[in-house]
Amino acid sequence: MDTRQAFLSHCQSNLAALRQEGRYREFAHLEKLAGRFPTYRWHGPAGVREVTVWSSNDYLGMGAHPAVLAAAGRAVEEHGAGAGGTRNISGTSPLHAALEAELASLHGKPAALLFGSGYIANQAGIAAVLEALPGFIVFSDAKNHASMIAGMRGAKGAQRVIWQHNDLADLEAKLAAAPAAAPKLIAFESVYSMDGDIAPIGAICDLAERYGAMTYLDEVHAVGLYGATGGGISERDGVAGRVDLIEGTLAKGFGVFGGYLAGDAAMVDYIRSTAGGLIFTTALPPAVAAAALESVLVLKRDADRRAALAERAATLKAALDAAGLPRIPGPSHIVPVWIGEAELCRQVARRLLEEHGIYATPINYPTVPRGTERLRLCATPFHTDAMIAGLVVALQSVLPAGQAMAAE
Amino acid sequence: MDTRQAFLSHCQSNLAALRQEGRYREFAHLEKLAGRFPTYRWHGPAGVREVTVWSSNDYLGMGAHPAVLAAAGRAVEEHGAGAGGTRNISGTSPLHAALEAELASLHGKPAALLFGSGYIANQAGIAAVLEALPGFIVFSDAKNHASMIAGMRGAKGAQRVIWQHNDLADLEAKLAAAPAAAPKLIAFESVYSMDGDIAPIGAICDLAERYGAMTYLDEVHAVGLYGATGGGISERDGVAGRVDLIEGTLAKGFGVFGGYLAGDAAMVDYIRSTAGGLIFTTALPPAVAAAALESVLVLKRDADRRAALAERAATLKAALDAAGLPRIPGPSHIVPVWIGEAELCRQVARRLLEEHGIYATPINYPTVPRGTERLRLCATPFHTDAMIAGLVVALQSVLPAGQAMAAE
Repeated sequence: MDTRQAFLSHCQSNLAALRQEGRYREFAHLEKLAGRFPTYRWHGPAGVREVTVWSSNDYLGMGAHPAVLAAAGRAVEEHGAGAGGTRNISGTSPLHAALEAELASLHGKPAALLFGSGYIANQAGIAAVLEALPGFIVFSDAKNHASMIAGMRGAKGAQRVIWQHNDLADLEAKLAAAPAAAPKLIAFESVYSMDGDIAPIGAICDLAERYGAMTYLDEVHAVGLYGATGGGISERDGVAGRVDLIEGTLAKGFGVFGGYLAGDAAMVDYIRSTAGGLIFTTALPPAVAAAALESVLVLKRDADRRAALAERAATLKAALDAAGLPRIPGPSHIVPVWIGEAELCRQVARRLLEEHGIYATPINYPTVPRGTERLRLCATPFHTDAMIAGLVVALQSVLPAGQAMAAE
Repeated sequence: MDTRQAFLSHCQSNLAALRQEGRYREFAHLEKLAGRFPTYRWHGPAGVREVTVWSSNDYLGMGAHPAVLAAAGRAVEEHGAGAGGTRNISGTSPLHAALEAELASLHGKPAALLFGSGYIANQAGIAAVLEALPGFIVFSDAKNHASMIAGMRGAKGAQRVIWQHNDLADLEAKLAAAPAAAPKLIAFESVYSMDGDIAPIGAICDLAERYGAMTYLDEVHAVGLYGATGGGISERDGVAGRVDLIEGTLAKGFGVFGGYLAGDAAMVDYIRSTAGGLIFTTALPPAVAAAALESVLVLKRDADRRAALAERAATLKAALDAAGLPRIPGPSHIVPVWIGEAELCRQVARRLLEEHGIYATPINYPTVPRGTERLRLCATPFHTDAMIAGLVVALQSVLPAGQAMAAE
């Protein structure tokens, strides 16, 4: 068979189907302006235009913090552009080591380990745990991130049991139904990215203790944002010490790049020594480590920034509610606006951008289930009252009449 | 069962076994000095000391190139520390798009796609191809990198056939033995990292055409280094047009961070639209894209730097040979020195570092097969004659007598 031709045909028909379903993704070219976040320059078909971005995961604007930029610039000058090797092959700088020590301290754990991304941290970390003992059963929240699922599916010999999202009764029923002698891991997130709801971490730890399970908690949408020093929901709730492995990112609240795991020293050392996704990949650039380290240190002290995020999120939610706009309710800084159909979602986003200078990414399958398409908004501390008012007016103008009711 | 205790015991006994085998990896803390590459500051147990690094994959010293650093510094100032989102969710800057266009042009392909690392590019890219058609058979060179193997093993439903390293007869026998109607992919590298030998790309493409197979070529140890404009061995050999997908890195020859795929527009667009390792992860920081773009552009023109690398590699090899030191022969810039035993390898590396101020990573299992442990050396254009002479003296002093013969 002519494999190239067969693969090419598959690609072409798949892309045509994505276009037909309204799910074909075009990456908007958005130029971040460090001094003016969340204002970006959009390079679109009709030229360059300034827009307000409502879909950044740089939740606190740390990617533009002067001290973070200074640390990055200084490290580039002193240490160059790249690490030049894997962690084991000349790629570990004192900056990497200092950042790992700081992240361990952030979560009150003895050790932490950097990865190239949160995706890799989840994929490699979860697989490393599940492959360590025969017959491992992983209890996975139904809304866990794709990277966690990749780790579970990639783990040879492990069995995956999916429990209803944030449903303690379902989790307990499934733990109770599993063989008592099987090793068990409960894998879940704190803040769920696409709905903005928050897991009952302490209660999940109660169940883990009752059934002898380990716990693996993804805090990527919470680190830097919640807790007295930015340690996430597990810090806010005072339960970090009960979670075995905490996974986080340096690319969202901390505004830089990379991912990490924190936990017991021997566990982290074991993962360091065995995870392919760590061993066989170039270390993060020293400047990325330096910028992230500065960001973690700044956010440890900067509770005001966290309070500003919470205030802006509350103001955005209130403004949407007052205007009768269909919002998926939730307690976090993530504010999803309901659309419910892929092509409509794409059109609404395009009109917001083209007619109103507002960038909000349409979130479609596979990121969320079909029929639950949405815009996912985040008001950072740098989104002003005027920006919120402009967003509400724009949404009212581009959302079809009756859209509010459709969300019920 | 108490899963935490069982996992902890597993970790502890596994780490103890690694120590016993001499395979426990301690990451040396090496501070890159941008202006003085390949001199680093080693932060060791006895304090800080300057050392010469012989194990960097920053093969051309581009991680310290003034234009690359200037591009990184400027982008940090203008665009901040991180991208703040996935490629689809506000994370695509004009710099990302420009870099992709330049990488496509480098390989003479219609399109290219950035990934967070070469590891992810391989894992996601290979899996995306193999999962596209039912019954895919992937013909994998026996020495393929762990990231390629991760992509093959992660691909549901695909069958993996391993052919003897760089052995055309074995590859052809295995292609001929497979069902004619099955879709086939030949996956291989150009320069093999741990041996430094080079694949016969054109002859492999001949076989691919004869048996209707697609070709996937990993050029991570070649891009920037070989070919008239740095397009790798496939450019040097004039066969890039015959390879379907070329994978490369921005973290070695280009001295920065990140990976990519280049190929047909529809194939690349399909992978962009379906690969989880791309969709669900934060885009590279704009400053990383800017630095890599500058590096690619510089190296397109800078044939002298490539010539200097070849000259330094030849000089290093000649010096080792003249001293009777046991070198694994090969035609590339990678120069492995044979050790053959894990604990000895670790000891030799430690003595080089502590007694001679020379850093060369011990390469042990799983990076190479047991019993083939080695030091892997690379002379960049910045390694002087004096450094080479010092290395030879140091190796003679730390290698056991008779080690040269053991390599035969």
